[in-house]
Amino acid sequence: MTPTPLHCPRCGRRAEDLGGCPACAKEGIGVNTPPPLADLTGLDLASYPGGPWGWPDAVPVPGPPVTLGEGNTPNIRLRTTGGDAQQDAGSGELWLKFEGANPTGSHKDRAMAVGLAAAVAAGADTVLAASSGNAGAAAAAYAARAGLRCVVFTNEAVPAGLRAQIDALGAERVLHRGTVAERNAAMAKAVEERGWYPLTCFAAVPPGSNPYADEGYKSVAYELARDFAGRRIDTVVVPTSRADLLAGIGRGFRELVAAGLVAAEPRLVAAEPAPRAPLTAALRYTDRADQERARVVDGPTVAFSVGGERPCWQGLDALWRTGGTAVAVTDEVTLAEHRRLAAEGLLLEPSSAVGVAVARDLVREPGSLVITIGTATGLKQLGDHGLSDGSGSDTP
Amino acid sequence: MTPTPLHCPRCGRRAEDLGGCPACAKEGIGVNTPPPLADLTGLDLASYPGGPWGWPDAVPVPGPPVTLGEGNTPNIRLRTTGGDAQQDAGSGELWLKFEGANPTGSHKDRAMAVGLAAAVAAGADTVLAASSGNAGAAAAAYAARAGLRCVVFTNEAVPAGLRAQIDALGAERVLHRGTVAERNAAMAKAVEERGWYPLTCFAAVPPGSNPYADEGYKSVAYELARDFAGRRIDTVVVPTSRADLLAGIGRGFRELVAAGLVAAEPRLVAAEPAPRAPLTAALRYTDRADQERARVVDGPTVAFSVGGERPCWQGLDALWRTGGTAVAVTDEVTLAEHRRLAAEGLLLEPSSAVGVAVARDLVREPGSLVITIGTATGLKQLGDHGLSDGSGSDTP
Ligand SMILES: [Zn+2]
Ligand SMILES: [Zn+2]
Repeated sequence: MTPTPLHCPRCGRRAEDLGGCPACAKEGIGVNTPPPLADLTGLDLASYPGGPWGWPDAVPVPGPPVTLGEGNTPNIRLRTTGGDAQQDAGSGELWLKFEGANPTGSHKDRAMAVGLAAAVAAGADTVLAASSGNAGAAAAAYAARAGLRCVVFTNEAVPAGLRAQIDALGAERVLHRGTVAERNAAMAKAVEERGWYPLTCFAAVPPGSNPYADEGYKSVAYELARDFAGRRIDTVVVPTSRADLLAGIGRGFRELVAAGLVAAEPRLVAAEPAPRAPLTAALRYTDRADQERARVVDGPTVAFSVGGERPCWQGLDALWRTGGTAVAVTDEVTLAEHRRLAAEGLLLEPSSAVGVAVARDLVREPGSLVITIGTATGLKQLGDHGLSDGSGSDTP
Repeated sequence: MTPTPLHCPRCGRRAEDLGGCPACAKEGIGVNTPPPLADLTGLDLASYPGGPWGWPDAVPVPGPPVTLGEGNTPNIRLRTTGGDAQQDAGSGELWLKFEGANPTGSHKDRAMAVGLAAAVAAGADTVLAASSGNAGAAAAAYAARAGLRCVVFTNEAVPAGLRAQIDALGAERVLHRGTVAERNAAMAKAVEERGWYPLTCFAAVPPGSNPYADEGYKSVAYELARDFAGRRIDTVVVPTSRADLLAGIGRGFRELVAAGLVAAEPRLVAAEPAPRAPLTAALRYTDRADQERARVVDGPTVAFSVGGERPCWQGLDALWRTGGTAVAVTDEVTLAEHRRLAAEGLLLEPSSAVGVAVARDLVREPGSLVITIGTATGLKQLGDHGLSDGSGSDTP
C-alpha cells in the first residue's frame, strides 16, 4: 500500500525517499521530512495507555503493531537539595523520565517499534541501521520480533556490552572501518540494489533517522502530558544528537496543544556534549540562516551516543518554536553527574547525564517543573567510565 | 514506631525478628512470617497506578516511600506458533510480564523499595543483603536512593556484570569465601552487634527474605489483575528460588479476591532449574508433612539466581492454595529457551527462561491465558551463556 506522504518542513517539497530533503541538502542543511501531524482531537489523555501504539492513529504506519512492551517509562524525582549549597528547598522540581526501562534499555525502542512496522508494511525482508549502539540494539530486537533480518553497521567506538547485545539479538553486525562517506555509500547501495529498508540515514548531509520510525518519539510527549496532567511543564531537556528524540517530543506536544489536550508546549532544551555541540554552536549566531549552516569539528566524548557535526534542522526548529535553547556540557561535568546519579541509585548511560547536568541549572528557579529524558540504562557500559568494572578488590 | 506485627502462617506464633519462624525451623521447615493481608475493599483496580507504592495502605511500612519508579512493567505476548509443530494457532495465549523493565533490571526492585523504607522506619543506618546478584544490585540502588549504607555479601558465582552494577551503585561488596553457615553467622553478628538492617535471611533453615520487603511483590498481582481486567488468568508461572516472588504474588491475589476485585486466584506454578528443584522434589511426596521436609542436593545451574536445597513453606502453601504445581527444567532446555527468546527480540536472564519453558507446555490448552514472570533483563550477563560476548568476528 502507499505510505503516508512525507514533506520537507523547511521548503515544503515532497520527499521521494527516506533520506531527508534533497533540495535543502544542496544548501548544506539536513532536514528530515516527517508525515503530517496527527489529529488527536477527541482523545482522552487520562486513558492514553502509553507507548507508540497507545493511540494507533497517531502513528503513520498501517498494519499490526510491532511491540515488545516499549513506552510507559517511569518518572523519577531527583534530589535538588543536599550536598549542593547552591540548591535549596526553594528550587523547582527536577524529574527524570527513565527510558532505560524500555525493553532493550533505551528510548530507541519507541522508534524501532514503529520503524519495523513500517518495514513490514513496505514489504522488506531486511532492515539496515548504522549505529553507535542503542539504535542498533533496538533495531535488532524489533527486527527479531517482526521476523525480519537485521544488518547493523557499527564503528569501533561501540562499547563491548552494546556489541554483545546486538549480536545476542541475532543481528548481523558489520564493523565498517572506512570513512563515514564510504559507509553511507555502502548503505545506499544495499538499499538500492538489495531493497534493504533503512532505519537510519545515509545521506551526506544527515537529516535524522527514518521519519516514520521517529514518530514513535511523540509518545514521550503524550506520556509526560498524561503523567503531569494539570501541571505546567516548564522545560523538557533532551540529550541530543541528530535531534530525532528532541523533534519527536516537540511534534508530540504540538499535536497535544492543537487538540486542546494541553495548554502550552514546554520549552525544549537540547543538551549536548561540549566536544560535539552543533546546536549550541548554531545558536551563537543571530540569524537563522547562519544557524542552519553552523558546523563544528566532531571530537571524542564519553557521551559517545550523542552530538554531531551539524545541527539537524528539525532540532533547531523545535528550539525556535518553543523559545528553547541548547547547552553544552564538558565531559568532566558529565562524569561528575554520572557519579552523582549512581549515588542516588540510578545507573544511566553517560549521555543521559549530559541532560541531567543541564537540567540541574534550569531547575533552580523556584516553582519550576523541569523534566529531563534519561535516554538509556547504564547496564550496557558498566565499567567503561570509572565507576567500576566489577573486577576490583572485594571489601574484606 | 512499632512495626507491623509478624506471625507464622504455619503455626500461628508471633515472630520476634525478621528471620522466619524459629519454632518451625526446629522442625526443619523454613517459614517466613508475613504481616497481615491488606484489606483492599473499596479500591478501584482500573485506577491502580502500579508499583509497590501504588496502594500505600497495602504496604506494611509507614513513612515516605523509597522509589526509583519500579513496577508497571509491560506484558509482552509471546509467539506460540511458528517453528514448533507441536504448537498451533489453536493454543492459548502466552504472556511474559517483563520485570527487566524495573530500574535495576529485575523484580527485586519491588521488594527493595519496600525493604529500604522499612529500614528507614527502623532507624537503621546500614542495610545488609546476601545475594547472588539481582537482590544485591537492587539493595544497593535503593539504599543509595534512601541515603543508607549498603553491604552486600556475595559469592564467586556472581557474574561480572552484576558485580559491576553493585559496585557502581556504591554498595560495599563482600566476597565471602566460607561456608553458607559461616556467612550466616557473619550476617547475624553484624545485625546483632552493629544494628545493620537485614534485607535477606541468614537463618540456618532459610525462610525467605525480609517479610516486609517481600510485600512489594504483591504489586505484581495487582498489576496483572488491572492489565488483564475482565479476563480469567488461568496460570501464573514464577521462576522460584526461596519463593519470595511466588508467595508475594499469591498473597496479592488473595487480597484481590477477598476484596472482590477479581473473581478467582490463578493457579500458581513454580518453575525451577532441575539441578536445584526443591518444590518439584517436595511435590513427589503425597503427604504435606513429607513435602514440608523435602530436601535436595544443590547443584550448579545456568539459572544461578533460582533454585535451592529446601522448599520454603510459603512457596508450598501458594501451590497448595491454588491447585498449582512445580516443574523442573534442565539447563539444556533453559538455554534453548533463552536462545528462542533472543530470536524473538527478548534478552532475559537464564532464570527467566526457566519460567517461559514451563509456561510453553501449559499454554497448549486452547483458550487458556498463561502468564510467566520474566524476572530480570539479560543485559547483566551478556556473553555468559553462549549467545555472544561481543568480541566475536565482525561480519565482513
Ligand atoms: Zn527542503
Ligand atoms: Zn511457625
